[in-house]
Amino acid sequence: MASVLPISSSISASQTPNNDQATFEFGISSYTLRKFPLEKAARMSLKMGTPNILLKDVHLPRSLTRIEIQKVTDNLRKQGVHPYAVGEITMNTKEDVNKAFEYAQAAGVNLIVASPDLKLLPDIEKAVKKFSVIRLSIHNNGPEDLRFPTPGSAYDLILNMDDKIGLCIDVGHTIRAGQDVAKKIIKYADRLFDIHVKDMSTPTQDANNVEIGRGVANYPEIMKALRKIKYDKIVCLEIEKDEDDPFAAISESIGYVKGVWSGINA
Amino acid sequence: MASVLPISSSISASQTPNNDQATFEFGISSYTLRKFPLEKAARMSLKMGTPNILLKDVHLPRSLTRIEIQKVTDNLRKQGVHPYAVGEITMNTKEDVNKAFEYAQAAGVNLIVASPDLKLLPDIEKAVKKFSVIRLSIHNNGPEDLRFPTPGSAYDLILNMDDKIGLCIDVGHTIRAGQDVAKKIIKYADRLFDIHVKDMSTPTQDANNVEIGRGVANYPEIMKALRKIKYDKIVCLEIEKDEDDPFAAISESIGYVKGVWSGINA
Repeated sequence: MASVLPISSSISASQTPNNDQATFEFGISSYTLRKFPLEKAARMSLKMGTPNILLKDVHLPRSLTRIEIQKVTDNLRKQGVHPYAVGEITMNTKEDVNKAFEYAQAAGVNLIVASPDLKLLPDIEKAVKKFSVIRLSIHNNGPEDLRFPTPGSAYDLILNMDDKIGLCIDVGHTIRAGQDVAKKIIKYADRLFDIHVKDMSTPTQDANNVEIGRGVANYPEIMKALRKIKYDKIVCLEIEKDEDDPFAAISESIGYVKGVWSGINA
Repeated sequence: MASVLPISSSISASQTPNNDQATFEFGISSYTLRKFPLEKAARMSLKMGTPNILLKDVHLPRSLTRIEIQKVTDNLRKQGVHPYAVGEITMNTKEDVNKAFEYAQAAGVNLIVASPDLKLLPDIEKAVKKFSVIRLSIHNNGPEDLRFPTPGSAYDLILNMDDKIGLCIDVGHTIRAGQDVAKKIIKYADRLFDIHVKDMSTPTQDANNVEIGRGVANYPEIMKALRKIKYDKIVCLEIEKDEDDPFAAISESIGYVKGVWSGINA
């Protein structure tokens, strides 16, 4: 994929000897680092071995001009950070859709993670055709979300639309909806553009976010599913706990996912 | 083992569904947290899910009285931290041996990790008989160590001695000596009392310590070896990098080892 650059400092699936098919790399959602200025967030992303970054507006405000956006993302690239997507962006109007695509284009990313109003799907289809290299992935937000409670609720609506519209499966919200994440990865593989990895304390709606490996998510099955579909995009860490000091939680989580990957491929 | 208490907050092998034989728990070497006062080290150990602690003299000075030592370790236990061993202690004289056993007894631990002078092995044998519940494990320190460069150099000497004298295999120093850690675990299983897990940048003497999972150590094979021998003691994290801010490195490392364990048992 054009969005997955071979960055040597990153932790990538291709480092595991027994797997020459899945070629994903790890990334981080800048929302995880929302309490820190972008400069520190970028430095920490590199230190944690996750140079691929999903930029949230807290770090790349949508109010910036095109030139300002380019400057911020060019600066990140100079540091070795790879902005691979923007979002999650909520879209309530046609204007939100167009602005999001212009924002992504200025940032030089080819993926938008979004929570759009259902009525905007035709406008999104027009936009992905117009902007050609920019895809849009719909992020599921759990059982109380009126738009996309599950990956399937999005998939069913986009199935016959342009294939540059797809899914970002959020592991936590999928678990909160009582669903089997590994099965959904396999079921919706053809439209899976991004995956947000995290862990939950319980398989219920009121679950809390915990370090990956301490909760109920079955990462051996999730990683086997990614291997099975030959996932070749970003596995994006999105840790919501300890927002004022998330580095231990993020590091434990990425270590765990990497370890599972090594373990299932050994 | 008496030294492995079932502490619910800890991350233990018994949490993995497909393994009902290996029953190890994770611990941490307080040497890893040597730049922090014991109180903070204890708090961080709990947060990182490693309540089992190997106490180094920087945190439990050997110059303390018996009563003072008891007070420190009792305080740790009240917080939920389990001091499982003391060390690594260098022993050059008979007096060092006796003092170390008295120190361990006062601390209420039943394991000493040591680097003794070779001529002291008969004195150590007398001490393990006298102190009955306290075992001693010899720690290998790499190719330049004149005492115990490899696990085998210790094993060969203690083979016919009291079976309360054993090994603490240091993964990093074993790799630096050019040896296959998993094979050594299996070979010396009957005397393996402790294992110090870490990772190295290269399989050479001048290797640097790196986060577990980023180096050359083969943790899938190491963990399979521990499963094979039904290891039931502590897997102790000893991270030497980033001593002023080691929490991300420790967390990534314990996450990785846990993940490998989940992966190989899936």
